[in-house]
Amino acid sequence: MSLIRGRFQADVNEQAKEYSASLPFDWRLYHYDIAGSIAHARMLGRQGIIPREDSLKIVRGLKAIEKEIEKGDFHFDNDLEDIHMAIESRLTELIGEAGAKLHTARSRNDQVALDTRLFAKDALEDAILGLRLIQETLVGLAETHRKVILPGYTHLQRAQPVLLAHHFLAYFEMFERDRARFRDCLRRADIMPLGSGALAGVTYPVDRKYVARQLGFRAISANSLDAVSDRDYILEFEAAASVCMMHLSRLAEEMILWSSAEFAFIELDDSYTHGSSIMPQKKNPDVAELARGKVGRVYGHLMALLTVMKGLPLAYNSDMQEDKEGFFDVVDTLLSTLEVFEGMLRSAKINAKKMGEALDNGYLLATDVADYLVRRGETFRAAHEAVGKLVNWAIKANQPLDRISLKDYQRFSPLFEDDVCLLTYDSSIAARNNPGGTAPEQVDKALKAARRALVEE
Amino acid sequence: MSLIRGRFQADVNEQAKEYSASLPFDWRLYHYDIAGSIAHARMLGRQGIIPREDSLKIVRGLKAIEKEIEKGDFHFDNDLEDIHMAIESRLTELIGEAGAKLHTARSRNDQVALDTRLFAKDALEDAILGLRLIQETLVGLAETHRKVILPGYTHLQRAQPVLLAHHFLAYFEMFERDRARFRDCLRRADIMPLGSGALAGVTYPVDRKYVARQLGFRAISANSLDAVSDRDYILEFEAAASVCMMHLSRLAEEMILWSSAEFAFIELDDSYTHGSSIMPQKKNPDVAELARGKVGRVYGHLMALLTVMKGLPLAYNSDMQEDKEGFFDVVDTLLSTLEVFEGMLRSAKINAKKMGEALDNGYLLATDVADYLVRRGETFRAAHEAVGKLVNWAIKANQPLDRISLKDYQRFSPLFEDDVCLLTYDSSIAARNNPGGTAPEQVDKALKAARRALVEE
Amino acid sequence: MSLIRGRFQADVNEQAKEYSASLPFDWRLYHYDIAGSIAHARMLGRQGIIPREDSLKIVRGLKAIEKEIEKGDFHFDNDLEDIHMAIESRLTELIGEAGAKLHTARSRNDQVALDTRLFAKDALEDAILGLRLIQETLVGLAETHRKVILPGYTHLQRAQPVLLAHHFLAYFEMFERDRARFRDCLRRADIMPLGSGALAGVTYPVDRKYVARQLGFRAISANSLDAVSDRDYILEFEAAASVCMMHLSRLAEEMILWSSAEFAFIELDDSYTHGSSIMPQKKNPDVAELARGKVGRVYGHLMALLTVMKGLPLAYNSDMQEDKEGFFDVVDTLLSTLEVFEGMLRSAKINAKKMGEALDNGYLLATDVADYLVRRGETFRAAHEAVGKLVNWAIKANQPLDRISLKDYQRFSPLFEDDVCLLTYDSSIAARNNPGGTAPEQVDKALKAARRALVEE
Amino acid sequence: MSLIRGRFQADVNEQAKEYSASLPFDWRLYHYDIAGSIAHARMLGRQGIIPREDSLKIVRGLKAIEKEIEKGDFHFDNDLEDIHMAIESRLTELIGEAGAKLHTARSRNDQVALDTRLFAKDALEDAILGLRLIQETLVGLAETHRKVILPGYTHLQRAQPVLLAHHFLAYFEMFERDRARFRDCLRRADIMPLGSGALAGVTYPVDRKYVARQLGFRAISANSLDAVSDRDYILEFEAAASVCMMHLSRLAEEMILWSSAEFAFIELDDSYTHGSSIMPQKKNPDVAELARGKVGRVYGHLMALLTVMKGLPLAYNSDMQEDKEGFFDVVDTLLSTLEVFEGMLRSAKINAKKMGEALDNGYLLATDVADYLVRRGETFRAAHEAVGKLVNWAIKANQPLDRISLKDYQRFSPLFEDDVCLLTYDSSIAARNNPGGTAPEQVDKALKAARRALVEE
Repeated sequence: MSLIRGRFQADVNEQAKEYSASLPFDWRLYHYDIAGSIAHARMLGRQGIIPREDSLKIVRGLKAIEKEIEKGDFHFDNDLEDIHMAIESRLTELIGEAGAKLHTARSRNDQVALDTRLFAKDALEDAILGLRLIQETLVGLAETHRKVILPGYTHLQRAQPVLLAHHFLAYFEMFERDRARFRDCLRRADIMPLGSGALAGVTYPVDRKYVARQLGFRAISANSLDAVSDRDYILEFEAAASVCMMHLSRLAEEMILWSSAEFAFIELDDSYTHGSSIMPQKKNPDVAELARGKVGRVYGHLMALLTVMKGLPLAYNSDMQEDKEGFFDVVDTLLSTLEVFEGMLRSAKINAKKMGEALDNGYLLATDVADYLVRRGETFRAAHEAVGKLVNWAIKANQPLDRISLKDYQRFSPLFEDDVCLLTYDSSIAARNNPGGTAPEQVDKALKAARRALVEE
Repeated sequence: MSLIRGRFQADVNEQAKEYSASLPFDWRLYHYDIAGSIAHARMLGRQGIIPREDSLKIVRGLKAIEKEIEKGDFHFDNDLEDIHMAIESRLTELIGEAGAKLHTARSRNDQVALDTRLFAKDALEDAILGLRLIQETLVGLAETHRKVILPGYTHLQRAQPVLLAHHFLAYFEMFERDRARFRDCLRRADIMPLGSGALAGVTYPVDRKYVARQLGFRAISANSLDAVSDRDYILEFEAAASVCMMHLSRLAEEMILWSSAEFAFIELDDSYTHGSSIMPQKKNPDVAELARGKVGRVYGHLMALLTVMKGLPLAYNSDMQEDKEGFFDVVDTLLSTLEVFEGMLRSAKINAKKMGEALDNGYLLATDVADYLVRRGETFRAAHEAVGKLVNWAIKANQPLDRISLKDYQRFSPLFEDDVCLLTYDSSIAARNNPGGTAPEQVDKALKAARRALVEE
Repeated sequence: MSLIRGRFQADVNEQAKEYSASLPFDWRLYHYDIAGSIAHARMLGRQGIIPREDSLKIVRGLKAIEKEIEKGDFHFDNDLEDIHMAIESRLTELIGEAGAKLHTARSRNDQVALDTRLFAKDALEDAILGLRLIQETLVGLAETHRKVILPGYTHLQRAQPVLLAHHFLAYFEMFERDRARFRDCLRRADIMPLGSGALAGVTYPVDRKYVARQLGFRAISANSLDAVSDRDYILEFEAAASVCMMHLSRLAEEMILWSSAEFAFIELDDSYTHGSSIMPQKKNPDVAELARGKVGRVYGHLMALLTVMKGLPLAYNSDMQEDKEGFFDVVDTLLSTLEVFEGMLRSAKINAKKMGEALDNGYLLATDVADYLVRRGETFRAAHEAVGKLVNWAIKANQPLDRISLKDYQRFSPLFEDDVCLLTYDSSIAARNNPGGTAPEQVDKALKAARRALVEE
Repeated sequence: MSLIRGRFQADVNEQAKEYSASLPFDWRLYHYDIAGSIAHARMLGRQGIIPREDSLKIVRGLKAIEKEIEKGDFHFDNDLEDIHMAIESRLTELIGEAGAKLHTARSRNDQVALDTRLFAKDALEDAILGLRLIQETLVGLAETHRKVILPGYTHLQRAQPVLLAHHFLAYFEMFERDRARFRDCLRRADIMPLGSGALAGVTYPVDRKYVARQLGFRAISANSLDAVSDRDYILEFEAAASVCMMHLSRLAEEMILWSSAEFAFIELDDSYTHGSSIMPQKKNPDVAELARGKVGRVYGHLMALLTVMKGLPLAYNSDMQEDKEGFFDVVDTLLSTLEVFEGMLRSAKINAKKMGEALDNGYLLATDVADYLVRRGETFRAAHEAVGKLVNWAIKANQPLDRISLKDYQRFSPLFEDDVCLLTYDSSIAARNNPGGTAPEQVDKALKAARRALVEE
């Protein structure tokens, strides 16, 4: 029977035990559990709550257990409910009575909060780093293909010419916001909860700030009831990860579109594509498709934990045990997607020629033609309407915009003159020369700012 | 390099391979994959698409592989992407060239659709059975505690007396609808997709109906493009499971409330509760809390797959590979929750005395008092208002309803007479004697109907 | 002060009143509320619960109120909380004391359940009809473009040739399942809850089956506690609508892709597209984009109500009032999307020439080439690998599959003979001649079955 | 026909028009649209892009239109698609040709991004203020009821005594994190997108920073493609609002529990409760229930927009128009819930006596008894087990902990001495005297820190 069933007359039913066991997934916290217990034991010894020699024994014992786990020598016994009990039980086996003192001035409620926060802090640093790596790759691609022009799209319709570098930098900006969100989350995750006890604090003269310093936390929690039942930092991580995966799903969608025969803007490297079990000619952008699909599971885990937390009275309730599996999967999904995307992007072949051909029949310059009329004194609305009619006529007449004669132009507005023919994709891009625009001058500035942003931290 | 990379010059990148490997979870389909392949191989032989002796070799080989897997002797090599490739590859090892003929007239797209549908059919039968078992337990409890009265609640305020049996039968009704939804889903899951090929059908003279018969399907799919990209039956399962888990979360909430010191209507068996790591007196209803929490993950998986499927063009896309892990977890969560709940309910101790005490001060009869006035000619609205004022006065005067003198009653309406004192909890319950009401006569009928519904199938 | 605050000493705070008022949205149920009240009043009179002449007055009064509302003469006063109170209050103004008897043997809890179920039944019929109309349009398009071939896609890569009719029929199948789901939901929605009272039934000799017959319900509810707190039918509607909108989002995605310059498979009618405020040449598939976006709100409403219902103890709780706005919006979104899609599809121009051109370089026949080798005795795996290599060589050599010489073919397998050149898109399609396949013969059968399915009901 | 359909031959179909009209909801942005257009017009004049006198005319016209709208004199014509067109069209009516120049150097894509960000900034400030007000009320309640002790709960089981002030401060901490999240979101929302044009920037010499200064933005957007398709700040708002509403749902759950007859810890003011239409004695905590329910719609809107944004290619797509209705509803729901909760809490009556009675039979001191043994040299595990057995015996013997004789104590451990009887609820609370604990000294410090946090900003 479990260590903590002093008041019970029957052991837990087998199904119930299996149903509530968290060891099958929370074993993953072992490193954080041990680190937390070491800091706790040191504090207990330092404060005289337990004898110093017991404290030392405990620390040595915990280090030995960590090695056992890493070597694969540790037996995870599901009867022991969770990783905390599994480690404590082994500790007492190893060092005897001193082990039974480790849980002094501590509850599983604040212990698991500590472990999860330690895990979260590492996950946040990893996410921030993963984002930086993919951002670097995007900047590198933008620099390499500095002069490539492709159609910018709205509504998946060709809209106006843009620099490919400008396009890549749009994703850079998204990931920059993602990084900022993870950093903000890190501030709120970086709070040390131990010492909150089960819900009300502990009756021993603990030194919470010492434990925080030992474990590298910036502050200690301010309210014990809140500290044992706060899962905000996981929700915040999952929400930030959802937005980040959404960004990746947009990029994935473009990689899939661009890999299609119809677009053919890009060729993914063989090493990031799969074959078909039946169609020998296929080369499928599986990685991008999977990434687009995996946004679903991240949204789902967010929804799951939001549901779990809804309407729970204070303080800890077992429902909260459901926080972990989803969190782990969100972290794994995010990090692996960032990593595999980075490689996929870096190894892809850009087909600048195809991009250029897609600029096509010149209708992408229609806005420039309208702006031309405005500069000659037309109101924007009248200019827009005139060019709309011009384009409509040109499509029917099967006339590319750059082959229309001045006479034809003038049928739609008397303000057209010879120089309308000087409008080109290059001039169109160069004209968008305001901060944030696609003009080469602006994109150069943006690239420099991006490089700075990556270095600064 | 993989069997199907004839056109590729590079193998899949290690990260990409890990990212897209489904073997770590789809190994679970092995039984269905083998059953499907056996039926397919028999059909190929029967139709002369492959030699009969190859067909026999394949069937024998597949049966041997199933035994290997069940004995734990099968090596799952993640390099082989998925369970289909893992089994086919082993088959060819075992039986040679004949194995390379198994995939004739088949694609992984229709193969995985087949496997998942076979899995779904079993899961649906299990869910229907699990529901029936918990329904039986509810009916049993209702029969055993046939005369227990407790306050019925709305807004968590005591409202009117009801029979405990009536309360349990409310959940019976919910689960009855759940069963019906799973049965409806089963009809739509019970469609045989093999023969759809990758997306367009196959070029061999297959006999799809033979395969369907072999595997116990009621019909074959009608459109190949749809058949390889249809995940409706999983969504429908997950939606039905979400509603069912929501019902269980309501029951869980009541078990938790009723186990509190404040209610004390029920005592869960020690074998379905847990202790605290720090508070020796605690007996926590963990199983009920976990069940209430686990509704979150089922909602989450539903949301995940809905997200995955949004906006996917025809036909198969790799995003769809994301269907399985969530589906498996929904099935496991639903079945284990039904099972553990059944045991928890069966072993719980009902505290009828506490329930009776909670009927309390008689204010639960206020509706009956108002109905009394209506029967004496008052309009319902006037009666409601008069009794409202009576109750307000009684609360302030700290007077239980059953101790109010007739004189005091008459201060609120001249229609009150001596017999108002005959109103009791028993009379209140007996008076609700219409179909669906809580009167003993009606509850008896409902119990009989419930027993019939459980037997009929 | 409200009619029902007899026991209260203060009126509701203004903010609280606004916060809890449902009249701003539940006014929409007025028709159902009145129909339900008429049936209830008739029953009360018939059973002698209220005088027959009061019953008649009530019925006349309610009909007058419905006319007032339809003419716009009815004053909706938010002080009256909800549509039930608004109508009852007006009734008493119109007909005096008899109006105060309408609420006899009824609670708002069973009343609102009745109203919402009546609304749901109409919504379900509308959804089923809307689906049938779009299905008819799909069948019509399939018949009209009976011979058009386009590339079938998997992973958005061209895979194998398919008939456009086959493609449209894939959506027909999805909508067929949607219709079935709505029909199943209708069976469960079609239950008459009145007579359940607040939670426990009513104390009057009501005739529930009479009310059910009057209102066209197939059955009455079996348990009063369940009947007032059951929202399954709304959840089931929203889940079925989510799947249906997901299908529409897939179709929308294809309409958007096919309208792009890169695909150009289709041209949406001007009347279903929008211009740009700045780019005169743009013609945007807004309707399809909006439909793809609107799947979000339907998923969201489903998640919202699932969240609302999680963990609510029996019986009615005010949380459930949150069911209506989302439900109304799901119904409106689904019906309008079906309707606008139907028109958009019907008016679209199919560009069969572009579809044909996209069949392209013949690599879509690779599966047929592999099957060719299989028929000549090769194992499928070996055939697949040989053709993979052939395609790889052909791409590098820039050789369309239909221009490769027999000698070159034979470099990859000695089994190739002259007749490999007989493989064409037409032969490829014709070869997939099994039920569910894209062969013209099969598609003809499928079209006939589709027509039958539409007529049968 | 619309202003911008120069190239179209047919007007938009009526259904399609209704389907895509945003005016029915985006009229709400009118104030922000006008403010944005005024800043834009001034900049156009200042930069010489349009004549200064036209700029002045536009500004005057826009101000007149705002007055018209506020007076209710403005005709919203759904034919005009959206609020931007409605205002521009009216402007041209009012001031003639100059109005047609307003849209120079602007697209609806960057215009709507601007309007929504202006709305978001106000909403964020309102949310931060609403949180501060409810936090002040919590601190006030904590100060007023400074000495009230109640059972702290875990698993809804009485666990350890805590100060009510400590309990209220737990919610203070949650709202403190919510405020921080909204402030972080504000930084990212506070970015001026105008000048991004449709997607690529504009061809005129605009002064984006001037516009930003005029409108009070801290910075301008860095990439035009990103700026027109970024909805992160709405998602981030909705995610933060989801977490905040989750906190409110927990508080709501407690208000509902505490208002039940079983707990009776609190009595909500009549002005924040509702009656029953049928049960005259009922006083229902509707506001709290609704708040608990409304968390559903906020989660739902978050899921909706996450779904909308999934997989959209760059840059603007009409799907994004779906961002607004959900956003508006999230803002309204959050602000009204905060406001109504503040009033409900402020006016509630705390029943300290009932809270005290719930401390009950002393078993809440079990942890303190175990800690007592530890201080006398027992290991924690052994102490926990001994006290577990003691409690088990006491429950069976029906002995409150404070009436157990020393002899009986000593049957479970020889370490017990006379002073075990000195353990009281007060001593238990006082002993938890570490930062974050429930000891009065710590709670006083926490109250001071809370007051400081509220003043500082």
